[in-house]
Amino acid sequence: MSEQILEQLIKKISKLPGLGPRSSRRAVLHLLKDREKLFLPLIQDMTEVADKIKKCIECGNLDQKDICGICSNSSRNNSLVCVVETVADLWALERSNVYNGKYHILGGVLSAIDGINPEQLSIASLERRLEVQKYTEVIIAISATLDGQTTAHYIAERLEKFNIKVTRLAHGVPIGGELDFLDDGTIAQALKARNIL
Amino acid sequence: MSEQILEQLIKKISKLPGLGPRSSRRAVLHLLKDREKLFLPLIQDMTEVADKIKKCIECGNLDQKDICGICSNSSRNNSLVCVVETVADLWALERSNVYNGKYHILGGVLSAIDGINPEQLSIASLERRLEVQKYTEVIIAISATLDGQTTAHYIAERLEKFNIKVTRLAHGVPIGGELDFLDDGTIAQALKARNIL
Repeated sequence: MSEQILEQLIKKISKLPGLGPRSSRRAVLHLLKDREKLFLPLIQDMTEVADKIKKCIECGNLDQKDICGICSNSSRNNSLVCVVETVADLWALERSNVYNGKYHILGGVLSAIDGINPEQLSIASLERRLEVQKYTEVIIAISATLDGQTTAHYIAERLEKFNIKVTRLAHGVPIGGELDFLDDGTIAQALKARNIL
Repeated sequence: MSEQILEQLIKKISKLPGLGPRSSRRAVLHLLKDREKLFLPLIQDMTEVADKIKKCIECGNLDQKDICGICSNSSRNNSLVCVVETVADLWALERSNVYNGKYHILGGVLSAIDGINPEQLSIASLERRLEVQKYTEVIIAISATLDGQTTAHYIAERLEKFNIKVTRLAHGVPIGGELDFLDDGTIAQALKARNIL
């Protein structure tokens, strides 16, 4: 492997999340197999995305326009806003096809270890949105981790002044999940929140 | 996910070997987090590789020059040539740091199912190399699959006229391998080729 630019590219790709040296090598060799049909079109698409995709000034979603397709979509429920950590979480909710309101991307969760404080999350911009527009409910859809829960409680406190309904996602047994593999915390929550069959 | 160019890019990346929709989404979102330090440099590197990297006219390795670094390296053993399927296999052998001869990349193995016949592999160019230069041994380092073994035997037959030593890699228990997890064929080969301790 005497080739520096090739090695450099493989190294860079191997550092992407979810990839490693082996998958990076495979991907690059695959691309080099067909420069015209695979490699160049991919570079072209990447250039276009790098050039054109920006953050929605309203919610933080990624889009070609300043105001994203979800925020500017008038057929969506204008009175619900769902607070998520990342764009990936927004996409996950969109794929589930059950939510029709707006979003607000926080950009992470509070973390003492990583030194993430409230100023680094877009909480102030959420407050501004609530001041300007009449929402009836804020759904907090943040990870059920310790940091995530801390963040959820912090946001709920900050939003108290708006006198708005603040909800969070239900905890419980995932569909298809086996009790045997679930942690005690989830089982306890699922038992407490049990429903009549 | 209303964004077509973003979706298109994620779809394209998800089709690369070793990746899927989830890892593709993660990788793209990661790149979009830092356009200047991550995304644009990666695009630049990819463009450079797509522009400059070509096949070595001698052995089929990938390099910036017409004759690759291995073929043009005079300190390597000029009397050995190792036949491998792909560039990835060449890299694997180079990483092992035990081989110091030349290579010849076949470009695949014979396969009735995939319709790969001898003309599609670079066997003729191997013969030409053997005609022009004095090699003392051809090491066939092809996968130990059925197709791979067929190909190895076919090549050995084609090279009979050169009256050259043709060898293949040893079969046996991989280092760190547990017998319990090995197939019968490997165990049988390892037993037959046993060494005095």
